[in-house]
Amino acid sequence: MPEPLRLGIAGLGTVGIGTVKILQRHAELLSRRAGRGLSVAAISARDRTKNRDADISCYEWEDDPVALARREDVDVYVELMGGADGPALAAIRAAIETGKDVVTANKALLAHHGQQLAEAAEAKGHVIRFEAAVAGGIPVVKALTEGLAGNEIRRVVGVMNGTCNYILTRMEESGLPYTDIFEEARQLGYLEADPELDVGGIDAGHKLSLLASIAFGTRVSFDAVDLEGIGRVSIDDIHRARDMGFRIKLLGVAQMTGRGLEQRMSPCLVPADSPLGQLQGGTNMVVLEGDSVGQVVLRGAGAGAGPTASAVMSDVIEIARGTRLSTFGQPAATLTEPTPARSSAPAPYYLRMGLTDKPGALAKVATVLGEEGISIDRMRQYGHADTSAPVLIVTHKTTREAVDHALRRLPATAVVLGDPVAIRIETV
Amino acid sequence: MPEPLRLGIAGLGTVGIGTVKILQRHAELLSRRAGRGLSVAAISARDRTKNRDADISCYEWEDDPVALARREDVDVYVELMGGADGPALAAIRAAIETGKDVVTANKALLAHHGQQLAEAAEAKGHVIRFEAAVAGGIPVVKALTEGLAGNEIRRVVGVMNGTCNYILTRMEESGLPYTDIFEEARQLGYLEADPELDVGGIDAGHKLSLLASIAFGTRVSFDAVDLEGIGRVSIDDIHRARDMGFRIKLLGVAQMTGRGLEQRMSPCLVPADSPLGQLQGGTNMVVLEGDSVGQVVLRGAGAGAGPTASAVMSDVIEIARGTRLSTFGQPAATLTEPTPARSSAPAPYYLRMGLTDKPGALAKVATVLGEEGISIDRMRQYGHADTSAPVLIVTHKTTREAVDHALRRLPATAVVLGDPVAIRIETV
Repeated sequence: MPEPLRLGIAGLGTVGIGTVKILQRHAELLSRRAGRGLSVAAISARDRTKNRDADISCYEWEDDPVALARREDVDVYVELMGGADGPALAAIRAAIETGKDVVTANKALLAHHGQQLAEAAEAKGHVIRFEAAVAGGIPVVKALTEGLAGNEIRRVVGVMNGTCNYILTRMEESGLPYTDIFEEARQLGYLEADPELDVGGIDAGHKLSLLASIAFGTRVSFDAVDLEGIGRVSIDDIHRARDMGFRIKLLGVAQMTGRGLEQRMSPCLVPADSPLGQLQGGTNMVVLEGDSVGQVVLRGAGAGAGPTASAVMSDVIEIARGTRLSTFGQPAATLTEPTPARSSAPAPYYLRMGLTDKPGALAKVATVLGEEGISIDRMRQYGHADTSAPVLIVTHKTTREAVDHALRRLPATAVVLGDPVAIRIETV
Repeated sequence: MPEPLRLGIAGLGTVGIGTVKILQRHAELLSRRAGRGLSVAAISARDRTKNRDADISCYEWEDDPVALARREDVDVYVELMGGADGPALAAIRAAIETGKDVVTANKALLAHHGQQLAEAAEAKGHVIRFEAAVAGGIPVVKALTEGLAGNEIRRVVGVMNGTCNYILTRMEESGLPYTDIFEEARQLGYLEADPELDVGGIDAGHKLSLLASIAFGTRVSFDAVDLEGIGRVSIDDIHRARDMGFRIKLLGVAQMTGRGLEQRMSPCLVPADSPLGQLQGGTNMVVLEGDSVGQVVLRGAGAGAGPTASAVMSDVIEIARGTRLSTFGQPAATLTEPTPARSSAPAPYYLRMGLTDKPGALAKVATVLGEEGISIDRMRQYGHADTSAPVLIVTHKTTREAVDHALRRLPATAVVLGDPVAIRIETV
């Protein structure tokens, strides 16, 4: 059996300690599968004295992750600190410079610096693997890079932020508004230090941009992701959508179109009885569509110590087995620069608006929609106590452009009160 | 870029031609991802002159797959003929002898000879890969071997035969009995030449035994799979089960218990609104449970030219990239011989029986169940036109042993007409 593979683990939070625990619990099993032992050369974290849920006294310690990354007795630098820049970036650069392989769960860092880091690593014949960065324990990076490698990928769709899905699920369950459930999630420790990373869709957008790179052979272009968070999803829309047979999910979609690469992460309606619609709480789901394979759907825990550490370990074992994959499934230097495209694929839309309680009000709205070429699939008007009648419309397939046009024209009808809401309906 | 990887493809049925078509359609894409070209050195099939859905005139031809496997200009022998023995086995043996890597979709062959072939290949430093043998396009072999490699696997559960799922789905939809839908499936070409392979659960059992080997580090032991086909599933049970909120699926379960390895493939009831219950037609679903990752669910097309060829190509690309994995995720010589165990995990059961239309009949049945420690969760008695009243019982969790005991005692009550039916309920 070859020499053990020596890990340097930086970051001993939930995922780091989860990884240490797997290494300690399954040493024999892992070495049988990896074909060699896995050892921890040294570890690093911010606070050495912090009480942790694993015995780490047996490992050598480095205060500085960069020093850890440079150690000669480290074969694989495992970056689990997080942060798009700063020490995480400096340490990964040091690891690559000194000829280490890298395993990381850091989506933000790869979304911003993945191209440059992958090129640097590949120039030296070293690998960067990041299964844990996308959809927690679901092996979706491997599914796309390896399992579906024979396919031209048509589309990647998914719910990739468990915190947002938790908040939306809890809003529906409890009937409480966004701000209340946001606070609940914060108290449960589900939110990032900067909650906007979660609820603003940024974290999920990072993940989507990494998958899009593998799927379409393009450079990671997070800046081109059309981002909209869940902060404006109202409890009203959640209830109304449910009445019409839908649920609201923060949904990512990446697809290559004739006009370029479309990437968006935004609240969408999905049929309540569809696999995506039934996704509850912190679970993630990714749908991969290939020209030969059709749809492959993967579901699993999107976060948490065990699932994320499971993904970290899958990369470590991959390297221990001698597998050498390009970061994004083909040499980074061959990835092309994508042309960003706004969403052009037609879709049905959900429209909600308040109408003045006057004869002919609905007719005026219907006329505007008709003139914009938007045809109505279903409509529902609710009883009401004041002078505003809530109206829901599910349209047939139309374009975002037509919807935006119509929304801009509606105020002129003088029958619509407040801002109408339009949310895309995705049927996967 | 290294030299192209040279394939020898044996078998030009649906999957073989599907593979050729991907190679022809995506030559550039595949070589970008594989890091080298993929070429076809030669092909072989039973009938050279048959009209096929792809131009194969550009490839060299071998009448004998063994000769193809022995060719010096073949790097990877791709076995897509099928059959547990005969030419397929002879050719794979020849390929290994002459130092080729092997990619195959042949589950029957691996279920019977996988251990011996893997040992032979690994002794020579060559690999056998079989993603296409299990669950068509779903990359479940890779998910288990690689993605979940850091986990002690608790359980593998799945619907892995699309034809059986098609038959069961169509029976429910149409209300027609098994024999009618079996005939329909035969006419649609969904059945193997020997249909018992499908409807007897043998094909699905082959697949389960391969996944169990990877999951638990044990030698493939197909003979120990507790097999029951769908031939005895009645339209009555499908309807009654639906009334109680269930669907009947041919479900495979493999798990390591204190008493040994449990492997069974049999009709089970699953909640109709669960992911498994909602699986329609030819779709497959596999649920993998690991100690760290929890449940990972994979869903996709279980058969067909495109999906299966997609899986074949993923193995070919894996080899082209230089990845060298043991057939069953660890060296074949280190796999242990499993102790087969009969299912011991308690589960709820669905019982159906006809009772004589006399006072006290139900009380007698309830008494027997109670004496066997079986408690009733839900019961439903149907109206009836003759002297036999159909009764359905959903029990709380109990053992198969207790159920079997009770079934043996019921005739002595003289109130049960005909053979009672007992089907396990699985909640995944």
